[in-house]
Amino acid sequence: MRAQVIDGKAITARMRAEVAEEAARLTAEGWQPKLVSISVGDTAAAELYVRNQQRQAESAGVLFEARNYPAETSLEQLTGILQGLNADPRVNGVIIQRPLPDHIPVKVLQKTVHPLKDVEGMHPASIGNIVYNDLALGPCTVVAAVEILKTLPLKLEGLDVTVIGHSEIVGKPIAFLLMGLGATVTVCHHMTRSVAMHSRASDAVFVAVGKPGLVTGEMLKPGAALIDIGINRVETSEGPRTVGDADFESCGEVAGWITPVPGGVGPVTVATLMKNAVLAARMQMEHYRDAYARTEH
Amino acid sequence: MRAQVIDGKAITARMRAEVAEEAARLTAEGWQPKLVSISVGDTAAAELYVRNQQRQAESAGVLFEARNYPAETSLEQLTGILQGLNADPRVNGVIIQRPLPDHIPVKVLQKTVHPLKDVEGMHPASIGNIVYNDLALGPCTVVAAVEILKTLPLKLEGLDVTVIGHSEIVGKPIAFLLMGLGATVTVCHHMTRSVAMHSRASDAVFVAVGKPGLVTGEMLKPGAALIDIGINRVETSEGPRTVGDADFESCGEVAGWITPVPGGVGPVTVATLMKNAVLAARMQMEHYRDAYARTEH
Repeated sequence: MRAQVIDGKAITARMRAEVAEEAARLTAEGWQPKLVSISVGDTAAAELYVRNQQRQAESAGVLFEARNYPAETSLEQLTGILQGLNADPRVNGVIIQRPLPDHIPVKVLQKTVHPLKDVEGMHPASIGNIVYNDLALGPCTVVAAVEILKTLPLKLEGLDVTVIGHSEIVGKPIAFLLMGLGATVTVCHHMTRSVAMHSRASDAVFVAVGKPGLVTGEMLKPGAALIDIGINRVETSEGPRTVGDADFESCGEVAGWITPVPGGVGPVTVATLMKNAVLAARMQMEHYRDAYARTEH
Repeated sequence: MRAQVIDGKAITARMRAEVAEEAARLTAEGWQPKLVSISVGDTAAAELYVRNQQRQAESAGVLFEARNYPAETSLEQLTGILQGLNADPRVNGVIIQRPLPDHIPVKVLQKTVHPLKDVEGMHPASIGNIVYNDLALGPCTVVAAVEILKTLPLKLEGLDVTVIGHSEIVGKPIAFLLMGLGATVTVCHHMTRSVAMHSRASDAVFVAVGKPGLVTGEMLKPGAALIDIGINRVETSEGPRTVGDADFESCGEVAGWITPVPGGVGPVTVATLMKNAVLAARMQMEHYRDAYARTEH
């Protein structure tokens, strides 16, 4: 293995310490950050995530309330619940756990969360703000992946980067965010004629597709950074395993840095959610104070 | 000259005929589209644009009201004016002419225009919707440049495209619109180490930087499409001239298609503004009808 394996947990620990400090400051001012997690129907799929979020929140001094609604809850009822949370000054952020039942369109719910309480960064206005380089609350996975790149001794200005995967919630926002930092970015996807042509010319490669083994060592430039955002469950002779989109073995022989899966982007994503929670609480506090400071007595 | 010169005016004429038909349909239903143009202070710089927009609007059956406010108008006054236009059912679209006086931040005004009346497509929500592939009202220049590419006999899926220039209002949205259409897109800018490395490997090149002569023939792949979005005033021995960002001579020898400046993207942009005006009027009509259809009698 030639590549240095990036330690997502170490990055997470640093971020969590900063979040805990900021949460303590906010709490002292009467604004202890609070997240509400909404899941609908069968909770088994999301349960592991929710429990992990809860643990991370509590260890950082962020309040966390996990709510579960029955599978038959209507869109109108959920919209009403979200509007209630938007209006509740004690709630600073709302997390909508996936998957949702088929009759609930996730985008409609994400749009209903007030942009200032959108700690997942999924509101169209949050995504639009990335384009405008005005990153208030960015999508957690996206911010996490880019934060990891920032820890490496690479100058982002002029860096040639290939992003593989052009989903609305990961690939495209990563590309925008990197462009804002000065990188030259190519976005590849399932219609790209030759991904390797682009990835082999790049100093850093991000992959977020959901296909194990998609990126192999021969697709990389020697010494490049590989940030693997994929999370796939695969069956192996030793039982089920979680792997990313990169063939870790061959990529590790060529890359200069590589994120492991699990233990790379995943933990940093949860830490970013907590960072968004304290950012959201501070923005709401300032918004509230501005509103009152402007009132004539 | 090897390249075929793309005739922006012919594309415009087709678009204008479609807009006129749709405007006539809307008018018959009591919803004749109406645009209001806002300029502030010295009008000389914008006057040519405004007059051109007015002429195009009128020839398509779109009402056009050009308003000019004194240079000393405050941001609060302008915000109030825009809120009044948002609330006025007779106004379907608002255009904010640039340049504005220094004390007026253009983004604040653009955010104040209601997204359904944002015919220039400059609201963060409009830009964010591009990322989500939900192009309601796109930025006019962006939509125009991509419409031009669509008129060529090139399959957009898998097309390798380089966008030179990463501005928030042109380069980035073009990149995301093209990605949504299946192209593999690289965005280059002033920090890119080698623009030619990317542009030479591309089937189509968009340039929107504002530097005459930036793109030369040797930066292109033979037969590629070159869409030139730059508009620059330069002094020549025969007096002032308007040119794009491409060196038209050398690029014309290598490219397969090339847009002239003037006469390329420019006229198509104005036609797109009119198309947005009828789209906005229709969305508002539907929104209005939905609201009333839902009321209990």
